[in-house]
Amino acid sequence: MENGYYVGIDLGGTNLKAGLLDAQANIKSKFSIPTGIERGRDQVVKNIIDAAKRAITESGINRNQVRGIGIGSPGPLSHRKGLIINPGNLPCLANTPIRQIVTEQTGIATTLENDANAAAWGEFWAGAGKGVSNLVMFTLGTGIGGGIITDGKLLRGHFENAAELGHILVQPGGRTCSCGQKGCVEAYASAYFLARRAEELIAEGKPSSLKARVETGEMLMAEHIAEAAKAGDALAKQVWDETCYYLGLTIVNVQHLTNPERVVLAGGLIAAGDFLLEPIKTHFQTLTWKLLEDYPEICFATLGNDAGLIGAAGCAWEAHRTGDW
Amino acid sequence: MENGYYVGIDLGGTNLKAGLLDAQANIKSKFSIPTGIERGRDQVVKNIIDAAKRAITESGINRNQVRGIGIGSPGPLSHRKGLIINPGNLPCLANTPIRQIVTEQTGIATTLENDANAAAWGEFWAGAGKGVSNLVMFTLGTGIGGGIITDGKLLRGHFENAAELGHILVQPGGRTCSCGQKGCVEAYASAYFLARRAEELIAEGKPSSLKARVETGEMLMAEHIAEAAKAGDALAKQVWDETCYYLGLTIVNVQHLTNPERVVLAGGLIAAGDFLLEPIKTHFQTLTWKLLEDYPEICFATLGNDAGLIGAAGCAWEAHRTGDW
Repeated sequence: MENGYYVGIDLGGTNLKAGLLDAQANIKSKFSIPTGIERGRDQVVKNIIDAAKRAITESGINRNQVRGIGIGSPGPLSHRKGLIINPGNLPCLANTPIRQIVTEQTGIATTLENDANAAAWGEFWAGAGKGVSNLVMFTLGTGIGGGIITDGKLLRGHFENAAELGHILVQPGGRTCSCGQKGCVEAYASAYFLARRAEELIAEGKPSSLKARVETGEMLMAEHIAEAAKAGDALAKQVWDETCYYLGLTIVNVQHLTNPERVVLAGGLIAAGDFLLEPIKTHFQTLTWKLLEDYPEICFATLGNDAGLIGAAGCAWEAHRTGDW
Repeated sequence: MENGYYVGIDLGGTNLKAGLLDAQANIKSKFSIPTGIERGRDQVVKNIIDAAKRAITESGINRNQVRGIGIGSPGPLSHRKGLIINPGNLPCLANTPIRQIVTEQTGIATTLENDANAAAWGEFWAGAGKGVSNLVMFTLGTGIGGGIITDGKLLRGHFENAAELGHILVQPGGRTCSCGQKGCVEAYASAYFLARRAEELIAEGKPSSLKARVETGEMLMAEHIAEAAKAGDALAKQVWDETCYYLGLTIVNVQHLTNPERVVLAGGLIAAGDFLLEPIKTHFQTLTWKLLEDYPEICFATLGNDAGLIGAAGCAWEAHRTGDW
């Protein structure tokens, strides 16, 4: 039986979640505090260190049984260097060698992973990916992020920037994405952009039950589109179906590249349930080849908002196991 | 200094190449014989075994210094099971547990790999990918094949069918590929299909210097399109440029998924040299994001037709190193 305990830190632009987990991914303590970016780098670093210590204290576990601290942070960052590079929503941590600082200040080995990879690792370790060695996770939120696990290891790539799944091109020359490319899946199928597509069609004069809401000046949300589509609104149905089409298409590309056993969908959009999942599966089956039945199982994540925290602790567990901090 | 010697077998539908290499990928013997598929499974298996023995004998190396035999074969196959499954151009070897047979008959540990992966491994071990840990190789021939190496290991995927790079969708809903999907890069940018696209445009009445050749009943080849494009033929230039565009686009998708340091292009199409490489690089730069400069180096393979043989021996070298046969 493996033992030892692992601190997970899920660092966000607004809140920092921390907790202590055992080697079977059971949560022994968990809390959330403000990240405190308005108080600058030194304070944020202190908050991280204090949170790690508090996670241990609150769990009641003896500190000498803690084998590691895992930090999941917005990227870009370098896991290999333990360095936060220049995250858009954590600007005060630019160029911070956080692994070294936290290791020195706590006396506990520390590892750094980007938040999308950490969440994928969480699902792999303790959620929808349990028991699988090859999986791809899509996080369908404001943007589309992802993580890829092959042969039981995170795929980071040479530039440590693999699994940028939102920037797979699904409509070459199409909508301009926030990244500058034209036709990224994110520009069609993220919660933010699918709502923008609906607004654009309404602005073009297409009829929709959503028009009244738009005319009040309210910004459409993905859930409004889902509701309207369920209620039979043709425009909403079109946008929703295209969203599922582009996600199915992206899964075909992922299938042929890394050939996962399971594709796990996470993020706010999965609140739509089968109304999202079933058409994605159908589009995938229509779009993919029939030469071989190397079809991944497509399913939802199960850890919800804890995926990042659990995954960060899981990254420390893996680093302890492999010696790769 | 590593030592030992490795037999490589590059099994094709027509010919079987065999050779002996040392651990630094120097070729000590090499020859080619007919595969002999018309004589059935037992004879082909015997030819493989005899070729392995002959490769050792011809090299003058003592048999007890040979650490392994690597067989590169058309797929589908299972490396993990050592099983050739059902290759289209080697039908007599369907469901043949070739690893076990060759191991037993030669007394030498044997490993099986699909030919596209073996060629990628060859370039990684001894060719254009030397010194790189993350690479993607495209073989641009009649079809488009590929191999992906991440963190110095072949990426095989759960179904052992990763790196089917020809079947990345680049024009959703577009041309029907031989695999049944619509819009695969293979249906646009393989040597076979780029020539078909030129023929189709000519059949639609578009003017081209290639028309006279088509009217003789001759099938257009990729090199005819390249020649005509170089000579200024507008239709040929259009088809050639679209080919490079679709390859650049596919490399963007590969960049965001596995994030390689180098993308190696191999296969018959690279005979066109810079006339192929430069526009692919230009399209890639135009199409990719500008957020981060995580751009792979795009270059040509260097091993030519020996990549499969060298890679097969290299797979045995790797299997010996890792114990994963």
